[in-house]
Amino acid sequence: MCRWAAYIGAPIFLDEIVSRPGHSLIHQSHCATQCHTAINADGFGIAWYGERAEPGLYRDVLPAWSDPNLKSLTAQVRSGLFLAHVRASTGTATSRNNCHPFTHGPWSFMHNGQIGGFEMFRRDADMMIPEELYPHRKGATDSEAIFLVALAEGLDGDPRGALERASARFIALSKAKGVGAYLRMTAALSDGKRLYAVRYASDGNAPSLYYRWSETRGGMAVVSEPLEDGEGDWTEVPEYSFCTIEREAVRVEDFMPCKLALAA
Amino acid sequence: MCRWAAYIGAPIFLDEIVSRPGHSLIHQSHCATQCHTAINADGFGIAWYGERAEPGLYRDVLPAWSDPNLKSLTAQVRSGLFLAHVRASTGTATSRNNCHPFTHGPWSFMHNGQIGGFEMFRRDADMMIPEELYPHRKGATDSEAIFLVALAEGLDGDPRGALERASARFIALSKAKGVGAYLRMTAALSDGKRLYAVRYASDGNAPSLYYRWSETRGGMAVVSEPLEDGEGDWTEVPEYSFCTIEREAVRVEDFMPCKLALAA
Amino acid sequence: MCRWAAYIGAPIFLDEIVSRPGHSLIHQSHCATQCHTAINADGFGIAWYGERAEPGLYRDVLPAWSDPNLKSLTAQVRSGLFLAHVRASTGTATSRNNCHPFTHGPWSFMHNGQIGGFEMFRRDADMMIPEELYPHRKGATDSEAIFLVALAEGLDGDPRGALERASARFIALSKAKGVGAYLRMTAALSDGKRLYAVRYASDGNAPSLYYRWSETRGGMAVVSEPLEDGEGDWTEVPEYSFCTIEREAVRVEDFMPCKLALAA
Amino acid sequence: MCRWAAYIGAPIFLDEIVSRPGHSLIHQSHCATQCHTAINADGFGIAWYGERAEPGLYRDVLPAWSDPNLKSLTAQVRSGLFLAHVRASTGTATSRNNCHPFTHGPWSFMHNGQIGGFEMFRRDADMMIPEELYPHRKGATDSEAIFLVALAEGLDGDPRGALERASARFIALSKAKGVGAYLRMTAALSDGKRLYAVRYASDGNAPSLYYRWSETRGGMAVVSEPLEDGEGDWTEVPEYSFCTIEREAVRVEDFMPCKLALAA
Repeated sequence: MCRWAAYIGAPIFLDEIVSRPGHSLIHQSHCATQCHTAINADGFGIAWYGERAEPGLYRDVLPAWSDPNLKSLTAQVRSGLFLAHVRASTGTATSRNNCHPFTHGPWSFMHNGQIGGFEMFRRDADMMIPEELYPHRKGATDSEAIFLVALAEGLDGDPRGALERASARFIALSKAKGVGAYLRMTAALSDGKRLYAVRYASDGNAPSLYYRWSETRGGMAVVSEPLEDGEGDWTEVPEYSFCTIEREAVRVEDFMPCKLALAA
Repeated sequence: MCRWAAYIGAPIFLDEIVSRPGHSLIHQSHCATQCHTAINADGFGIAWYGERAEPGLYRDVLPAWSDPNLKSLTAQVRSGLFLAHVRASTGTATSRNNCHPFTHGPWSFMHNGQIGGFEMFRRDADMMIPEELYPHRKGATDSEAIFLVALAEGLDGDPRGALERASARFIALSKAKGVGAYLRMTAALSDGKRLYAVRYASDGNAPSLYYRWSETRGGMAVVSEPLEDGEGDWTEVPEYSFCTIEREAVRVEDFMPCKLALAA
Repeated sequence: MCRWAAYIGAPIFLDEIVSRPGHSLIHQSHCATQCHTAINADGFGIAWYGERAEPGLYRDVLPAWSDPNLKSLTAQVRSGLFLAHVRASTGTATSRNNCHPFTHGPWSFMHNGQIGGFEMFRRDADMMIPEELYPHRKGATDSEAIFLVALAEGLDGDPRGALERASARFIALSKAKGVGAYLRMTAALSDGKRLYAVRYASDGNAPSLYYRWSETRGGMAVVSEPLEDGEGDWTEVPEYSFCTIEREAVRVEDFMPCKLALAA
Repeated sequence: MCRWAAYIGAPIFLDEIVSRPGHSLIHQSHCATQCHTAINADGFGIAWYGERAEPGLYRDVLPAWSDPNLKSLTAQVRSGLFLAHVRASTGTATSRNNCHPFTHGPWSFMHNGQIGGFEMFRRDADMMIPEELYPHRKGATDSEAIFLVALAEGLDGDPRGALERASARFIALSKAKGVGAYLRMTAALSDGKRLYAVRYASDGNAPSLYYRWSETRGGMAVVSEPLEDGEGDWTEVPEYSFCTIEREAVRVEDFMPCKLALAA
């Protein structure tokens, strides 16, 4: 099912989010509490923004808890904007190209959830990826496909609209050829300037998603599960919503791909 | 560029072909002499037939020379029909799903060569794979695509014709959207009963390919490069030919996908 | 904490024990029910005996559930005597050389449990390994050390005695420099002719261990946890015992390294 | 045989040394020109100093040329002091713990060369590592052993003397139990403040080593092989010498462990 955590704000060491908290992302890789799979050990990844327009990307297939490279990297690298993910496969192979986040140019993207029955129509899904983006279709996940189709739909100019349109197309596919639930999704994405997060499910069972501003750090964490037990001030992201986060400010808009899918 | 070796005959330990000879496949993984790349260290794989209809498959991304699992496996497993491959990537990522051989049902397939400019039309290539086979498109190589399209073209009933038709389709694609040479290929494939091998290039520069019957072993080896220096009795497979091998007997037929491509 | 399964009897496909049963070893790699760690995802390994005196050995660091190589190997390889293990690290790194089973000549060995406080006296432990066996000390686990010291103590002639003497030496070390519990151990070992199993703990908390003769298969399975729920005829191996198994016959003898340690 | 490159100076992106130059370290991983092995594909590693006292460490077993994580990391991370290494194994397994650099506290160390016949006396070598450092003996290389014994000999206070004493001890061991050449070594080490480099061989065949100050970068590169062909101003490090480098200044002292070994 996956779990993820993202951050935007004053630069901090990645481990402040990934490993240090009591219920850090690494803790969630073997003890997640708010999803089907307590274990998310089919790989992990981090995308982080620094001096360059494109983010750095580190992904591997090992369980996150046992990778000394990850430990070292997160203790050394500071960033004011990053995405981190631990994976529980919904069917596709464990390989680096099937780990999140995915990146393209300045964009990074990670996903928790699935497109219902994706393997039944992966061909159709791949066909929604235009030729110029196809070289970036490196794995076989529904998540990478969502990202590439969203890019095609105009992520650059209108992230909310593009992701909504992309999601609608997958919902329609799933309705036609797959199985419900057509689309369950929490996702985080960034262009290196802002952090975006979305929470949605076509069947009302969206994965969990929260955010919290930390005054001490000077940054906003957006997470699948609160990073500390007993920290009561995590705000739940409402379902059917798309958030634009620029440090302390969170703008919440509707996210309704199902409506688009119906209209189509 | 890759190197490979295949065998059909009396069951032998896999290492008789893979590691023991002086210029074994493992030797060719770091010291190949008849191809562009002396080093073929972007992964390896073995498919072997035993009691079951489907072959066993072992693939990994490490250089073949350093994998103790491969060493152990080849020392223990006997087979009368197997395919072994060491990979030099022509662009796609190093991942298990991009290693050869590929398998589907009773079929196994491995390839040395490339489809010219494949990354420019990978989308079109993937679209030639029919829906029912698409779940088996797990990587991004041209080789896996050739295999799946050949299956779609009827490998079961007519291996030579199916592979020729598949090759023609890729030649046409490469002509239209890629770069020459359109197709260079030595390949080995099997359905568990016979061993097939092909040698072809649209530009006359086909990779090397040889075979040799061993009386002592009671089997036929088909290889990119002869397994022992100074062993003078390796027969070169002619270009533009498709071989059907049932132990000692080799039937050689024309293989002319370019003609088909022109006709189309 | 680890889980393992061993088999001796009529040759069967490895997957009959490793993956097919409802609570197979692979199931135990993510859902163990009778030990601390439900998850045993820090690597796995199989040692199997075939035609050669030395067993084959396949080990990798990935979680067992996601490895297609393991799946393929266990579906293809038949053996009348094999050891299989899924690992939960008690401190040492996740690397192939720290995965069980360990092999040396015809011997194979795997372990569930630990030597209390081992990292505090690993140097002393390594020093118990004689020079001629030291090249085989490839990792840093307590388990590999137990195996090599047992070999030094004369595993060839007297497996029970050798393992008891080796265990006594580690108990003494742990008493002197480590922390209790000094030694907890279920282990399986084989020389390719017989299967041996031991269950012991210096503090009375030995890991779980069972065996069951299968009339249909014609073989004995020895396991950390019964392979099927509801299969009531698994016999629990008593604590403080060393079993010698030759197909249906199980000879049970005392195993009392603590007594030896006291005497020393 | 390995190849390596180190840098001290104004912070630069790691890829300025590791991958961008025409004969970069990654190029040397498959096309080294001044050593036995053109191919150094048994793993790689980077240790880099940033804000913390301890360096970051990233090591993996894949050939350096095919790792996208390495590519990404080196494009993103800036450092004013780092060590990078590509490995050709002299016998020990390919595993992360056998890759260089090795780190301990603020120290990092990497090595090209070998201790003659090391596997014949690895036990004695391990015994030279004192108990308090033994938990850091994680692999089985001669290089890691040299590092740990040098630490024990007082790297903190006197890097040259400590490494010389450590080397003398290994030369003596190799003389007594191994085979010539007793010790061949180029090594780089750092405490996060200065960069040290050494070039030595007991038989006069020391691996290659050069350095060059770059005015444009404002930093010193120390390398196995010059990073650009035709760049004529690389200074060869004399054999039997230990260099202390603080940006532009290079202090060269004698390094004569053989004398110490004789005296002992």
